[in-house]
Amino acid sequence: MQIDLPTIEDIHAARRRIAGQVRITPVLQNAALDQLSAARLWFKCENLQHIGAFKFRGASNAVLSLTDEQAQPGVLTHSSGNHGAALGLAARLRGIPAHIVVPDNAPAIKLANMRETGAILHLCAANLASRETTAAGVQAETGASMIHPFTDPRVIAGQGTAALELLEAEPDLDTLVVPVGGGGLLSGTAIAAHAHSASIRVYAAEPEGAADAYRAMQTGKREQNPAADTICDGLRTGIGETNFAIMQRERVRVLTASDDEIVAAMRLLWDRLKLIIEPSAAVCLAVILRHPSEFSARRVGIVLSGGNVDLQRLPWRADPP
Amino acid sequence: MQIDLPTIEDIHAARRRIAGQVRITPVLQNAALDQLSAARLWFKCENLQHIGAFKFRGASNAVLSLTDEQAQPGVLTHSSGNHGAALGLAARLRGIPAHIVVPDNAPAIKLANMRETGAILHLCAANLASRETTAAGVQAETGASMIHPFTDPRVIAGQGTAALELLEAEPDLDTLVVPVGGGGLLSGTAIAAHAHSASIRVYAAEPEGAADAYRAMQTGKREQNPAADTICDGLRTGIGETNFAIMQRERVRVLTASDDEIVAAMRLLWDRLKLIIEPSAAVCLAVILRHPSEFSARRVGIVLSGGNVDLQRLPWRADPP
Repeated sequence: MQIDLPTIEDIHAARRRIAGQVRITPVLQNAALDQLSAARLWFKCENLQHIGAFKFRGASNAVLSLTDEQAQPGVLTHSSGNHGAALGLAARLRGIPAHIVVPDNAPAIKLANMRETGAILHLCAANLASRETTAAGVQAETGASMIHPFTDPRVIAGQGTAALELLEAEPDLDTLVVPVGGGGLLSGTAIAAHAHSASIRVYAAEPEGAADAYRAMQTGKREQNPAADTICDGLRTGIGETNFAIMQRERVRVLTASDDEIVAAMRLLWDRLKLIIEPSAAVCLAVILRHPSEFSARRVGIVLSGGNVDLQRLPWRADPP
Repeated sequence: MQIDLPTIEDIHAARRRIAGQVRITPVLQNAALDQLSAARLWFKCENLQHIGAFKFRGASNAVLSLTDEQAQPGVLTHSSGNHGAALGLAARLRGIPAHIVVPDNAPAIKLANMRETGAILHLCAANLASRETTAAGVQAETGASMIHPFTDPRVIAGQGTAALELLEAEPDLDTLVVPVGGGGLLSGTAIAAHAHSASIRVYAAEPEGAADAYRAMQTGKREQNPAADTICDGLRTGIGETNFAIMQRERVRVLTASDDEIVAAMRLLWDRLKLIIEPSAAVCLAVILRHPSEFSARRVGIVLSGGNVDLQRLPWRADPP
């Protein structure tokens, strides 16, 4: 199969397309975290993006790329989390329906976030066969356009706009670190980074309990997460084919961290940056602190990918009030 | 006693003096909170300021206002919280010592924050007499300049720079809401607001359990908080004399909220804005939601004053991990 890989021109076009709808998120620094990492860190705060995650960039670009005729029947995707809410909001802003196929074991808070956007949810059993049957049924019935959460080139181009903004704000970064699940953010970031400067090092941060991208870069072929076991609910997915192709071409380096390290990094970020970020975003700082020799004295940009956390269930034990 | 009230020129001078050292914090909006309040809300994120609070503005202006000769023996204040850490950092950046007189019942996390800046802590008993004796002793011994946490005109002018930035970013605001404890932020804000436009309404938000400013505006004289009882540890102090004079002149309106309302607003802000903010900052949204008729359809600027929270002790019961 011929894969159509997005280019830097696609990312620039995405940026123009989504301007005004997508928030230009702030970039923060913190002296204590710099000291701890023996590096200089710039945090791109995509937890402050609409729906609380970078996913709104890709979803917006995909929805706004449709012609009026294509858009009219609406859009369709499968998601148990942030992509569903992002597509729901992007569709609502264009005035078209969004259909989300959701596994029936998705966390209640994620379902509520999706419903709040006005998206129509289609529950399915939590397996691939049920998901594909359900999605095919919805598509046949509605004619909605499928917007895949991470392999869709319009989604990849949209996610790349976060790195574009970050590098415009801080042109001298020599290193970028982003989390990897399906690889939408990672592949868009790698394209944007290497168009800016061929020498920028791009790292993917991955939880040990779902380290398919790490293994894939070693074996040279896509791997599975047969029993994904990690607190990072956004990163349990295996990497997509398009995304893996970009990752190989752009020589992305993958580093992993344990869930304990991720929770410690998450708490450190809450404490120091005063930001709510989710475990799937904290994995970046976790790998930096675990692999100091890779980052020592470097100028590191980090995408804090999202902040959707159930405040009733924190991953550390808090004293009762 | 003749009180020297700071002017808008002092706030402009403060802004020039502290530029480069103080962070220009982002201003965020949120559609769900707009809908809930039936108003439009702009949040100035001073929780993202250095040391996690607006206090760094006033402390920086005070320290940078000193001549070299005045600065050399260092600075002195009394604080159990954010002002101490702010003065400690401002002093360190100028390379001079900071002496902080701290009550021996101050929370451990606040002490740690102050120590981290390199400030020298002088513990005293938790009463006014002990505090004044200890401060007088330190001053006699060191010759350090006293920087009062909220009555010092240099501090008030520094705190006013947050509203200046907010009104520059959003010139059409017709309402500002800030918390009131000693009144440093409030008085600086009122001066900046009414220099921008005489018709802007300035509200002080105050917890019911320490509502001296509310009572003072009714009786026309300063009142006490003999038994301050509120979760807002930054707002237990009574209003200062200078601050009350400015508050009266600028016709500030005071509204109160209960601790339950403040905790609910805090959790709502965490959830919706993805920001860690402390109870003393959440009181602003709490009064807006409690008094909807005051804010309906208005364009409201809110200073989220700080984000220093002990993550081990949240004011709501969280499920164990």
